[in-house]
Amino acid sequence: MARKRRRKKVQSRRREETIKALTDLGNRIYNMMRNGEFPYLKLPSRSVSNIIYSEEERGYVLGSKTKVRSAANFMHLKKFAQFVWIAYFTKELLVNKKTSTLRDVYYSSQAYGVDFEEQSESDELIMDLESLIGRPREDMNIFPAERAAIFGDLTIEYTVPGYEGKKINLTTHPDGLMIGHSLRTSEFVETSAERVFVIEKDAIFNRFIEERIYQKYKAILISTSGQAPRAARYLIRRLNQELGLPVYIFTDGDVWGLHIAGVIIYGSANSAHVRDLHTPDAKWIGVWASDIEKYKLPTDPFTEVDMKRLQELMRDPRYKGELWQRELEKFRKLKKKSELEAFSRYGLTYIVDTYLKNKMEEINSL
Amino acid sequence: MARKRRRKKVQSRRREETIKALTDLGNRIYNMMRNGEFPYLKLPSRSVSNIIYSEEERGYVLGSKTKVRSAANFMHLKKFAQFVWIAYFTKELLVNKKTSTLRDVYYSSQAYGVDFEEQSESDELIMDLESLIGRPREDMNIFPAERAAIFGDLTIEYTVPGYEGKKINLTTHPDGLMIGHSLRTSEFVETSAERVFVIEKDAIFNRFIEERIYQKYKAILISTSGQAPRAARYLIRRLNQELGLPVYIFTDGDVWGLHIAGVIIYGSANSAHVRDLHTPDAKWIGVWASDIEKYKLPTDPFTEVDMKRLQELMRDPRYKGELWQRELEKFRKLKKKSELEAFSRYGLTYIVDTYLKNKMEEINSL
Repeated sequence: MARKRRRKKVQSRRREETIKALTDLGNRIYNMMRNGEFPYLKLPSRSVSNIIYSEEERGYVLGSKTKVRSAANFMHLKKFAQFVWIAYFTKELLVNKKTSTLRDVYYSSQAYGVDFEEQSESDELIMDLESLIGRPREDMNIFPAERAAIFGDLTIEYTVPGYEGKKINLTTHPDGLMIGHSLRTSEFVETSAERVFVIEKDAIFNRFIEERIYQKYKAILISTSGQAPRAARYLIRRLNQELGLPVYIFTDGDVWGLHIAGVIIYGSANSAHVRDLHTPDAKWIGVWASDIEKYKLPTDPFTEVDMKRLQELMRDPRYKGELWQRELEKFRKLKKKSELEAFSRYGLTYIVDTYLKNKMEEINSL
Repeated sequence: MARKRRRKKVQSRRREETIKALTDLGNRIYNMMRNGEFPYLKLPSRSVSNIIYSEEERGYVLGSKTKVRSAANFMHLKKFAQFVWIAYFTKELLVNKKTSTLRDVYYSSQAYGVDFEEQSESDELIMDLESLIGRPREDMNIFPAERAAIFGDLTIEYTVPGYEGKKINLTTHPDGLMIGHSLRTSEFVETSAERVFVIEKDAIFNRFIEERIYQKYKAILISTSGQAPRAARYLIRRLNQELGLPVYIFTDGDVWGLHIAGVIIYGSANSAHVRDLHTPDAKWIGVWASDIEKYKLPTDPFTEVDMKRLQELMRDPRYKGELWQRELEKFRKLKKKSELEAFSRYGLTYIVDTYLKNKMEEINSL
């Protein structure tokens, strides 16, 4: 039995900090009004021209451009009021320990006589709030419908209402547990795991469980079900940073799979304004274009959409590194793609007995 | 504390029965060949003209038309061989306690030198096998990526390898448990629940958990995340039939939501050839078109696609009952739709404090 890893609680502080940030925001506005000033806010600009790749963060971040939203400007007045309501509402959610979704916030506004024409308007203001206080909307109890899953020897302790202090080991349920609100915010108590395998496809995630890869490789398994939801990206980062576990990403062998790995590693433009969602030390270890050749996998030809996406990714600053360029170039020449399930052409367990084994040997020999 | 419900094991017999059905099939083919005959199979026809609504089953079933696939017919030969391989492969899955997916079976065929041009071909033969032995592909360990979830006071006992005899209560994980392979095939051990609430939207499923509806109404909660996956439909039926729990379905107030309820209650044309997926006694209790008016919900106008779907459903034999016709007619007049989240216009807990309460009172007064 491997040495167990433990950690101290940090997660439970986040809720208090977020409430404080929202309260400070309210006080700032209140004080401006008490001083006879029109209240205003300076918000980081989230326009494309202000999204930059940071060498230091090794991910996308916002640049230094800001925009001012002032109650003194008639054109800003409605948005300013709506923004104040959004901040108020999220604080209410946190204080009352209720959760919500983007859609739900949009409808809730009507309970307060705050009118949005469309959901996109309230979504925008929630992103403004995220960028202003530097925390993702999940920290304000606004959640998407997320369905990524996790399995492995990790004991967590819940922090959600009614479950505080309750523990569960992530091998308890053989289908894996969904990475939802309570998992995302749980404390890590103990693990014997030495690495994390992140897998794009549920079918392969299930195969890894079935073949007991979590025991053989002392691995925590995560299924992203396609592009990783934010809760999964946040959890992957925590596993890497809090427990010091190396992270290895398995995707389909196509440009979309490559980009799924890239978003986990570097972050996405859409969430450049929030922190703690990327894992710069995570490694994409397959399926590479070169694996398609090496393992003679069944392929499908690239479509026009694949080619267009390839061109975009070749110009993307995240993918200027050697491995990315080599594999993108190889895809460009091959004009073919392959899925994780394609290894089954050699039998159901080939992907673990041969492919995974080879990949881990390569890594250990570096 | 309510009286606990218990049941005896029936689930574990299914695997043995499926293996036996596949073995019998193999023996039948083998014996025909030993007798010097060209082997053939008589399969239920799955063509649209053979899908009928059965008053007795209260759901879609296949009619009496059959098709013959014979090795004596040169045109059938390839399909016949492929079909035999599919049956062989699924038996191997069951015997070795491995699982697979439709995609995976397609690729696996190449490991045996069995060639399919496209996945749709192997999918078709798997459906043929389902209809021949009268069991869904899940009974042959072929699973889709399913992400419906369940939460409530129900203790289950796993039957999957490595977990036999282990028990878990479905309130253990506050995000709910995914309805995957191991949940689908678990034994129901004990419950204090008196009803099942099936909910189309994850956001409302989570609200129901948060507001402790599972305690207040002694309810097991199921989220279908849109159209209910087969595993969820199978589990809903089991909860109804094995535990005798009434089932109430909440969907968005539109024709798509109505049809989600309809598929849970009556089954779908796509799975007319398999049994045990529909729950004729389940009730659709909202959001009705009449609720949209009654509760003055925010609405969106019907699109052309909505109108087209409405016309189709009005002609559908499943919806000839009074409630369905009344609500379809009301939708036709309103030309508006509304979502479950729309209740938040009256505050986050209105949907449980008022809407759910009213609906349950209506039901109890019947």
